[in-house]
Amino acid sequence: MADGSALPRNEVGINAALGILKQQFGERFQTGASIREQHGHTTTWIDNQPPDAVVFAHSTQEVSDIVKVCAAHRVPVIPFGTGTSLEGHVNAPAGGISVDVSQMDKVLEVNAGDLDCRVQPGVTRMALNEHLRDQGLFFPIDPGANASIGGMAATRASGTNAVRYGTMKDNVLSVEAVMANGEIIRTASRARKTSAGYDLTRLMVGSEGTLGLITEITLRLQGIPEAISAASCSFPTMEAACETVMAVIQYGLPVARIELLDALVVKAVNNYSKLTLSETPLLLLEFHGSEAGVVEQAETFGEIAGEFDGTGYAATTSTEERSKLWQARHDAYWAMLALRPGCKAVATDVCVPISRLAEAVTRSNDKATELDLIAPIVGHAGDGNFHASLLIDMGDAAEVARAAEFVSWLNDMAIELGGTCTGEHGIGQGKRPYLRKELGGAVDVMGAIKRALDPDDIMNPGKILPS
Amino acid sequence: MADGSALPRNEVGINAALGILKQQFGERFQTGASIREQHGHTTTWIDNQPPDAVVFAHSTQEVSDIVKVCAAHRVPVIPFGTGTSLEGHVNAPAGGISVDVSQMDKVLEVNAGDLDCRVQPGVTRMALNEHLRDQGLFFPIDPGANASIGGMAATRASGTNAVRYGTMKDNVLSVEAVMANGEIIRTASRARKTSAGYDLTRLMVGSEGTLGLITEITLRLQGIPEAISAASCSFPTMEAACETVMAVIQYGLPVARIELLDALVVKAVNNYSKLTLSETPLLLLEFHGSEAGVVEQAETFGEIAGEFDGTGYAATTSTEERSKLWQARHDAYWAMLALRPGCKAVATDVCVPISRLAEAVTRSNDKATELDLIAPIVGHAGDGNFHASLLIDMGDAAEVARAAEFVSWLNDMAIELGGTCTGEHGIGQGKRPYLRKELGGAVDVMGAIKRALDPDDIMNPGKILPS
Repeated sequence: MADGSALPRNEVGINAALGILKQQFGERFQTGASIREQHGHTTTWIDNQPPDAVVFAHSTQEVSDIVKVCAAHRVPVIPFGTGTSLEGHVNAPAGGISVDVSQMDKVLEVNAGDLDCRVQPGVTRMALNEHLRDQGLFFPIDPGANASIGGMAATRASGTNAVRYGTMKDNVLSVEAVMANGEIIRTASRARKTSAGYDLTRLMVGSEGTLGLITEITLRLQGIPEAISAASCSFPTMEAACETVMAVIQYGLPVARIELLDALVVKAVNNYSKLTLSETPLLLLEFHGSEAGVVEQAETFGEIAGEFDGTGYAATTSTEERSKLWQARHDAYWAMLALRPGCKAVATDVCVPISRLAEAVTRSNDKATELDLIAPIVGHAGDGNFHASLLIDMGDAAEVARAAEFVSWLNDMAIELGGTCTGEHGIGQGKRPYLRKELGGAVDVMGAIKRALDPDDIMNPGKILPS
Repeated sequence: MADGSALPRNEVGINAALGILKQQFGERFQTGASIREQHGHTTTWIDNQPPDAVVFAHSTQEVSDIVKVCAAHRVPVIPFGTGTSLEGHVNAPAGGISVDVSQMDKVLEVNAGDLDCRVQPGVTRMALNEHLRDQGLFFPIDPGANASIGGMAATRASGTNAVRYGTMKDNVLSVEAVMANGEIIRTASRARKTSAGYDLTRLMVGSEGTLGLITEITLRLQGIPEAISAASCSFPTMEAACETVMAVIQYGLPVARIELLDALVVKAVNNYSKLTLSETPLLLLEFHGSEAGVVEQAETFGEIAGEFDGTGYAATTSTEERSKLWQARHDAYWAMLALRPGCKAVATDVCVPISRLAEAVTRSNDKATELDLIAPIVGHAGDGNFHASLLIDMGDAAEVARAAEFVSWLNDMAIELGGTCTGEHGIGQGKRPYLRKELGGAVDVMGAIKRALDPDDIMNPGKILPS
């Protein structure tokens, strides 16, 4: 399914590497079937392709040691954080070693005066925010799952706050990485900006482990806002909701979050969480700023929404009411699954220029209807990024085929509208067939970089670049 | 001087390419001494190294044609926009062809609904903002000079607005570029965010023409703020001014500009522009937002500044008064030159974590005194980036040597404090000796990328990478 086919295995090399690593890592070297399967875990419909072994690394030096062994024997190295990626990123199509960095979970330093910190890759975003809270700081990137910072950097993750705070590319100051030859590099200084040579930080962010393995990340932080307010507003149509979003962005209103839920998702959430939201398209918002600032932002949003027939608009600065409002969004995944018990939810992730968002979501709905598929939509609307989640009976081959047709059609449509097949999930295995459609000859440049930095293709092979 | 030594010339190839390009480009192919010297122009103390010819390109296809001729004959290609770079970027140490893109100056499209536009590389930032004004939009990056957008992208420029709006890396959505083999690529779609493969956009931004020649740029735009207010505040010491900046950043106050001038610069500006500012360290500020928002920001700043003995604080929303306030900053370069008529100003560009800014500027002042040099300081303080401009009598060899010692010392100090030798000017020829000090083995990764994408080293050779 998708582009997750198995690749040739280097049995001799793998056996040699397994022997050496077992010796070196003792109980932190594991080959049990269930742990291997869990490390090839993928939340898509791509088949599980477990690694031959999992090694739990405790330091950059250990990661370097592992990579050197694998380099000497031409064995694949696949980084693993929390396993919440969505496009088969942690699969091992050619076998090899999964390097689990979840135990490299220390916050190494926090420089409150500089609004930055340095962390190991296994620190999760929730653990980091827990660590930072007492200092009045937070790390804004929120992809939903409690992902590891290393994995978020490797996949260029973003999520609900990106409209205001950007994506991982905007919030990583530098990384330390182990390259394919085992060398350890640091991509940049701790300065807030730099013009010192090629932007290796941004090259590593989003490279999905195919160029090197990220072992430390220096992040930009934000001060916790003085005030936070949340709001929701219903709209008669998806067009009206999308036009509101476009007007908000054009106005320059600094919304911290502006999320779109289609009528089907709202209905699902009402059922799942016993809410009574109007079962029409909904925008959920969050405003960050001063006490007066969030009030003004909420008022301005209300005026804009009114121009597009928004109804039931309510804003609140109460923490409790805010949590309740956002519950609809946080429950969306489980609520959607409950629409069709026993089904699997297959995520899509297109992102289009905001002026094309209304057209894209409308056509997506129409196409799902045409193909007799259930495909509720939630979107990080302020970025033009939305997820149509296909609820599929995986036992029904015809339905699976129609779903595959939908995914292919959706990616092509996004590219045709000037957008991308992936706003935040990455290419992994699943989207490899679309990369060249989207970027043409630029893919050859990516291939040249990959061959230069990893000539034996041992770093997470079978990901990003088309075969 | 610095690292601008001549490189071996491929005379046979150069002669062959000159013959072909003369044929192809007629009057747009120029070899006069003065035009060649102007295209090797550098505002540093690095010697002028003129190209063998200048070709004025009118289209991406023409740029590709030129590069293909040069690739076939292994002849250097040096991009040229407005010639305002500061580290010998447009010099031709191995000879070759200067590709002047200043006549590729069209704004190709403006998508107001998406807050983006697509421009040719020769469009200057002022021309772009002139073009955008009627639509209520602006492009925020302001490096001071009226640089070309292509050059700003190639050097990862920033300037006074970066503290709020980021640098070129944050404001370029994608580029079209001609690579070393003449192939034309586009690095990304027009979506506001993407996880589609390696971030070639950020790789090209800041690559200084050494990987490819940028022929189109898609930029993020901003709505012109509803209100703009400006302010100035004097401080008893540089430490107090820097501590104020740090507190402002930690507070999360969204200042659009926060510029630092030391006492010597203020004195120079008073003399030059007939102002009566207190001749002590000065912060100049700009606030962007709603009418109420800028008032609130200005008040908050005033409170913070008060805690650090700021005096003479005044904020204004009058356009006229704002222009007058900012005149001090805009005149700073000329005012500094007037401190010592006949001298040359040699720019430096270090950037340190903000918590080290006070220490860095203080040590910089002390070192200048110790070396008997005049080195007034202006800084983009919100980013920790400052320029000590050495006023040098280029005819005094001993003074030039002391200046070189200062520059070397300053770059080393910035690196030692966790910063960079270049916040925004780039490496060019002048800073090549410092890149490995700053980034160690990461420079080998840059070298591998360079060799993979430009195996014959024809794209702006002798820049960025150490020999």
